[in-house]
Amino acid sequence: MSTTQASKIEIIKAPNTKINEVDFDNINFGSVFTDHLFECDYKNGEWQTPTIKPYAPFMMDPSSRVFHYGQAIFEGMKAYKDDNNDIWLFRPDENIKRFNSSAVRMAMPEVPVSLFTEGLNQLLKLDEAWIKKGLGNTLYIRPFMIATGFGVVANPSDEYKFMIILSPAKAYYSGEVKVLVAEHYSRAANGGIGSAKTAGNYAGQFYPTSLANKEGYQQIIWTDDATHTKLEEAGTMNVFFRFNDTLVTAPTSERILDGVTRKSLIDMAKREGINMEVRPVLISELTEGIKNGSLKEIFGAGTAAVVSPIKGFAYKEEYFELPKIENSIALQLKEKLTNIQHKLAEDPFDWTVKI
Amino acid sequence: MSTTQASKIEIIKAPNTKINEVDFDNINFGSVFTDHLFECDYKNGEWQTPTIKPYAPFMMDPSSRVFHYGQAIFEGMKAYKDDNNDIWLFRPDENIKRFNSSAVRMAMPEVPVSLFTEGLNQLLKLDEAWIKKGLGNTLYIRPFMIATGFGVVANPSDEYKFMIILSPAKAYYSGEVKVLVAEHYSRAANGGIGSAKTAGNYAGQFYPTSLANKEGYQQIIWTDDATHTKLEEAGTMNVFFRFNDTLVTAPTSERILDGVTRKSLIDMAKREGINMEVRPVLISELTEGIKNGSLKEIFGAGTAAVVSPIKGFAYKEEYFELPKIENSIALQLKEKLTNIQHKLAEDPFDWTVKI
Repeated sequence: MSTTQASKIEIIKAPNTKINEVDFDNINFGSVFTDHLFECDYKNGEWQTPTIKPYAPFMMDPSSRVFHYGQAIFEGMKAYKDDNNDIWLFRPDENIKRFNSSAVRMAMPEVPVSLFTEGLNQLLKLDEAWIKKGLGNTLYIRPFMIATGFGVVANPSDEYKFMIILSPAKAYYSGEVKVLVAEHYSRAANGGIGSAKTAGNYAGQFYPTSLANKEGYQQIIWTDDATHTKLEEAGTMNVFFRFNDTLVTAPTSERILDGVTRKSLIDMAKREGINMEVRPVLISELTEGIKNGSLKEIFGAGTAAVVSPIKGFAYKEEYFELPKIENSIALQLKEKLTNIQHKLAEDPFDWTVKI
Repeated sequence: MSTTQASKIEIIKAPNTKINEVDFDNINFGSVFTDHLFECDYKNGEWQTPTIKPYAPFMMDPSSRVFHYGQAIFEGMKAYKDDNNDIWLFRPDENIKRFNSSAVRMAMPEVPVSLFTEGLNQLLKLDEAWIKKGLGNTLYIRPFMIATGFGVVANPSDEYKFMIILSPAKAYYSGEVKVLVAEHYSRAANGGIGSAKTAGNYAGQFYPTSLANKEGYQQIIWTDDATHTKLEEAGTMNVFFRFNDTLVTAPTSERILDGVTRKSLIDMAKREGINMEVRPVLISELTEGIKNGSLKEIFGAGTAAVVSPIKGFAYKEEYFELPKIENSIALQLKEKLTNIQHKLAEDPFDWTVKI
């Protein structure tokens, strides 16, 4: 962490705080933002003066490339406050690395690690009152970059805006969801942008998901687009399956996001002595697993919800409900991971970083 | 065209025109915009008062959905002025229909045809001085819609902005380009969003195209992502192949945009008595066609360039140059279509619409 870089950030403080208007016990995820944001523009081939300033709308030209050609990437991270009022991040290096991988795939400039880190840390310190103590209280961090260059010609922009905005969040629990296994729609192509955390990947899911919603399923388990037999992601999360006492998840690829929660759960499971397999998972294994009783759990894994249990899935117009179980590996791993993140348990992996 | 709808548009005229600052003979495509734009917001489940107002930047919240989840669609159209100073559009119904198909696929509200038509027509009338007479002079029309609702949660927005902006353009000619046949990267998945004219499809092409550029190829011929053997699009255009005196182009699908120029060329070719086949085209047909001399022409087809001749292609590290030919069907069709669009030739298809 270079202090020279830090000193370069221009800070404009908000005249007032909005924090007293917020009911922290009743916040819809991603709907309330803190007093400040971090912003840095990319122009003439270089990053300009970074700024922390009051959260506010900003001007965009109607011909801005992001509106027309979709150069837009983001990350999802969380900050936690422990009982000593120290602020912690969880594996921020992984998010920054992925952000820059996404940038390369979308023909956008990479954000220097020091710029990203310093901007985030100073923003968090300034808005630290928005990070509440206690299990389940987090500050969701949304770094993103958009193409701001002018002109309706389908080429990469020459100007970009990198921003970090912060949103206080309670534990995100969507309930036990029913999912539909995709037989027609897909989220990613071979050689496509499925492993980049880019805006267009999400918009593409909304319509198929709305169709699933109408049939009573909250999410879709995405399959490979060529054969629709390999199970790849669940909604906007990675997906894990438990057969007897073995956990299985698909390997990352160009079609599958390299999730930080996913890779953390893999490492934790291994350390716990759980048999952990990273290999393609076929839909036939699920229907077989229901029939012979070996399929015990399915769950999504992602930053927002950490772990999201799935109670059943539909495939080829048939609904398969998972058995009720006593000792959910999903919930055990969730508890352990959440405790590490909140500094309530030892962190044998050195994943947590104090800012 | 309902006059009641028309009377509802609120018009705020620009105090001055920028037209005298523009050198119409030297405009980079998509870089200059006219004095006004059309705008209509969607809120509370309905379209609000449509407005024509001076072209200007507008405010966006940092959490606007388009920045994070990519709900953004657009169209490309052109207006032409004939020798009588009448203004003409080319098959606008096809663009409006496709715009609304894209809207459905991206979980966005459809724009009522009357709103789209009236907004466009009144905008064109107000900025009619920007449409120059003469072959090669056009006004490029960019209707687009973006998600403006707040909040970083991956759900469809509840608010949208529909805009039309106008950009004067000279004939768009990219020269005879060399293309690279995609062996790894892809633009669309089966069951994906390839047939929607949505922002993210374009951003995904930039990086693979930049790699091709470095090797000396201006564009990529996209192939199906599962086998990389079927030839689907060229850059951001549909693609045609001429074997001896037969034209061939791939059928539209979820992976291929239903191009207005593409379908117009198909109809024109048929009327000209050219043997026109719409069927999957394999890369092996191209390499065979070079060897046996049957492959005569390859060209892209799209609104901006109309027809874009391709002079050779690379596949598996080998470059195949097309033979020089005397009577290019591509250029003949381009001339006929351009003449129809500019009202310099009879329009047997009733494609042109006077506003």
